[in-house]
Amino acid sequence: MSAAFDYHLVLQSASKLDHALELVWSDGKTSTFHYLWLRDNCPTTLHPDTKERTFDLLSVSADIEPLSFSVDNDRLMIEWSEGDHHSQFSGEWLREHAYAGDLRPANKPRARSWDAQFLKDMGSASFNDLTTDDAALYSWMKQLDQDGIILVKDMPATEQALDDVAHRIDYQRQTNFGVTFEVRSEPNPINLAYTALALPLHTDLPNQETPPGYQFLHCLANDTQGGESVFADGLRVLEDMREQAPEHFELLATVAIPFRFHDETHDIQHHHPMINLDHQGNIVELKYNAHIASVFDLPEAVMHDYYLAYRDLMGRMRQAKYRMQYRLKAGEMVVFDNRRVLHGRTEFEPTGHRHLRGCYVDRTEFQSRLRVLARQHD
Amino acid sequence: MSAAFDYHLVLQSASKLDHALELVWSDGKTSTFHYLWLRDNCPTTLHPDTKERTFDLLSVSADIEPLSFSVDNDRLMIEWSEGDHHSQFSGEWLREHAYAGDLRPANKPRARSWDAQFLKDMGSASFNDLTTDDAALYSWMKQLDQDGIILVKDMPATEQALDDVAHRIDYQRQTNFGVTFEVRSEPNPINLAYTALALPLHTDLPNQETPPGYQFLHCLANDTQGGESVFADGLRVLEDMREQAPEHFELLATVAIPFRFHDETHDIQHHHPMINLDHQGNIVELKYNAHIASVFDLPEAVMHDYYLAYRDLMGRMRQAKYRMQYRLKAGEMVVFDNRRVLHGRTEFEPTGHRHLRGCYVDRTEFQSRLRVLARQHD
Repeated sequence: MSAAFDYHLVLQSASKLDHALELVWSDGKTSTFHYLWLRDNCPTTLHPDTKERTFDLLSVSADIEPLSFSVDNDRLMIEWSEGDHHSQFSGEWLREHAYAGDLRPANKPRARSWDAQFLKDMGSASFNDLTTDDAALYSWMKQLDQDGIILVKDMPATEQALDDVAHRIDYQRQTNFGVTFEVRSEPNPINLAYTALALPLHTDLPNQETPPGYQFLHCLANDTQGGESVFADGLRVLEDMREQAPEHFELLATVAIPFRFHDETHDIQHHHPMINLDHQGNIVELKYNAHIASVFDLPEAVMHDYYLAYRDLMGRMRQAKYRMQYRLKAGEMVVFDNRRVLHGRTEFEPTGHRHLRGCYVDRTEFQSRLRVLARQHD
Repeated sequence: MSAAFDYHLVLQSASKLDHALELVWSDGKTSTFHYLWLRDNCPTTLHPDTKERTFDLLSVSADIEPLSFSVDNDRLMIEWSEGDHHSQFSGEWLREHAYAGDLRPANKPRARSWDAQFLKDMGSASFNDLTTDDAALYSWMKQLDQDGIILVKDMPATEQALDDVAHRIDYQRQTNFGVTFEVRSEPNPINLAYTALALPLHTDLPNQETPPGYQFLHCLANDTQGGESVFADGLRVLEDMREQAPEHFELLATVAIPFRFHDETHDIQHHHPMINLDHQGNIVELKYNAHIASVFDLPEAVMHDYYLAYRDLMGRMRQAKYRMQYRLKAGEMVVFDNRRVLHGRTEFEPTGHRHLRGCYVDRTEFQSRLRVLARQHD
């Protein structure tokens, strides 16, 4: 039962609405539950082992209704008009799943957005704790879920160390760049211009239908001049834009643009809006990478305004107030949500060694692991 | 250049609109190109090697416009008002990328939907051809892209054979069930697929943020009574629904519902609409699995109508006219688009052996491979 509810709340009475029962709770608040929803979620509909629904919704008609119903001892009992079937629901379960009326749960996003000042609040855990202690792992993952970025310290200087942390969550997400990838420069590289370049803020692989979720970058060496990592919380940038330029935000959240990466062996393209909202209107994703944005193919009436919105976003992302700069040291790893936090790096002198080893773990697996850990550690 | 255009079409003239040039072609048709689009796509903006955009859009203002422009010999020349920059575009490239006006390309979906009669038209290729001949692979992938389902014949009776075909496309998509999975009757099933029960039509893993793309099922044994595979083209079902019950289609395409799978080690949940459209309004995805649909949490005003729409879809999917039944034989493999084609099976006697070995390859990798093969084989 959610902590938001009064522990002593109990079912008081029920009455009929159109297609639904209205339940009244002991504090006078009400909740609506539709007949089809109640029948579909009768506790008998689930397979006892797999918890999958075995009830066939079409085995009853859309007109099914209670022949009779009653409330007793914090339980709702229904005798149905079809199938000679009775259902019994606990008040606790109904409170937990209330979707309409006074007990509908508030939409509380877990994320906490940040700006340049965040550096001192960025969390961390040690490699040893993360890989041996589930409680430490859970606490670290909760903070990563909230902030979108976190560190791991005291990483062994091995290739395996990255995988060891990632596998504590789940399997790694493969891409056309492999399961893991190396970001490396050597002294006297062939292409000086390329290695000395700053890398502007971006998110990885917006040309994929679903860009990778959490990105892991294990620093194995960083003894160059420069080469600092730069991050910005896309969530904060977009929150501000949504408030200050809602018409720009709306365009970026609804108009799909093409992204493309192509080489000898791959040609990976996808159209989508740069901003993605969930079913509750929360910002869940930013896809931004000017280098692999492809040739826009928007309708005539939208093109000019879209460019204005896109330029607005670009300009905002360059503001110092969003920009957090951090020099990764050998033995540290940064982990961030690639679909929320933008990353880049400053220019560096190609005189020393700089070597990051990276991989991805997707959001689906991350959230699943977080839920399973919460069962034991919350 | 697209075959849809007249090969002899050339640029005739250009004139100024608001924020854009209107080009007139030799057949009198017009195309609009915005100044920001033209500057952003000047051929000089792309890195010559990587083809990534190195031009910074914010290095010019939103008011940039041509100081002068001219059309000559199927080329558009522009002298810009900022940056002392000139651009030159070929008419061919502009025709190919025309996004507004008479030459905007028509939206032509590749998919061809089918019904129960499709059985005789279902394509196939032999394992040997697929794994040794790129032209055969390309032709087979094109047909799979169009129809959403296809067979492979003469598969070796080895575990490796499945991987050999999948790897001809790209890497496999891992899920909580592994990189590959075995479908056979088990004593303590964790989901319905591992029982001998009939399996109603469904798509796999709608509880994932992005459900797996192409599903491969290699039949290693099938000497039970029953156990026939059943398929239906969700695209056809939805095309019909969109025409016959547009209000139901609209609800299923816009209202997000929760799906959930949970066991000891995973708790994988996601909210999304069952139907997903692309930016051109084409049906690109159906997520349907009544067994792992979770407890609906829709707004009160929507719940009853949503159930009516959902029941409508369920009823349609059971109509015989959509249902294609096929008995997989040992040595055959079926490959289908899990986000388009529904699959299931008839009940079987758990006395004989029935063993399918499966895996997934995602749409992103499939489409990329198809594009790369097209370079050589189209």
